[in-house]
Amino acid sequence: MSESEVAIFVCVSCRRPVEGRDAREDDLPGPPLVAALQARLAGEISVVPVECLAVCKRPCTLVLAGSSRWTYLIGDLDSDRDLEEIVEAARSYAASGNGILPWRERPASFRKGVIARVPPRATAAANPAAPEGLPS
Amino acid sequence: MSESEVAIFVCVSCRRPVEGRDAREDDLPGPPLVAALQARLAGEISVVPVECLAVCKRPCTLVLAGSSRWTYLIGDLDSDRDLEEIVEAARSYAASGNGILPWRERPASFRKGVIARVPPRATAAANPAAPEGLPS
Repeated sequence: MSESEVAIFVCVSCRRPVEGRDAREDDLPGPPLVAALQARLAGEISVVPVECLAVCKRPCTLVLAGSSRWTYLIGDLDSDRDLEEIVEAARSYAASGNGILPWRERPASFRKGVIARVPPRATAAANPAAPEGLPS
Repeated sequence: MSESEVAIFVCVSCRRPVEGRDAREDDLPGPPLVAALQARLAGEISVVPVECLAVCKRPCTLVLAGSSRWTYLIGDLDSDRDLEEIVEAARSYAASGNGILPWRERPASFRKGVIARVPPRATAAANPAAPEGLPS
């Protein structure tokens, strides 16, 4: 598994505002999640901060992407509460052939937080007009 | 522009139920959108039906994807009302270098319907630890 084959993109722009006071730097939950994941997954999986995934209302939001795999967008993640689940799910994703984690192996945060998924690019090249039959 | 370089993935499973009666085949808005887009974009852009994009609550949902481009997920599309806007936006997407359509060139249905976007894979390989600065 090369480091660049699988990547986690983490939105670092979404704020999680606290009612009753003005916005502060520490309302940004993305950067600490990037730092924590980079520390845990160094040499295994690239963890890349991005300025906007256009989800905006479900921080933290991240993407699991990899060659020949389905891409998954997951939101509502917390850098403290969900760190271990994200690390384990990312490793399972990297170990999978197609990026699809069996439902029973998905952590609770991933079951609840799925925003969307995108088929691998090869789906278009290999079969441009036939329905897909892969499980979600 | 090769046909396989850019693809539109359309969810064909989401139902748009009508209150007051049982589900019917014609509550599925995805398949007619696939057929209409395939007719309009034959030889230009692959239009691929997929069974689930895991969005589920915003039919029709589609994905614009292409080599070296940002991937966009758009929902709340109607195969009659929005067909021309989808065709034009898909052509602009195919003609773009990075998949980002300037805001003023995005049709209304795309401005309202954005669900998420995903960076190109090269983002991870080229710059695994630096923030992205591309406009959304």
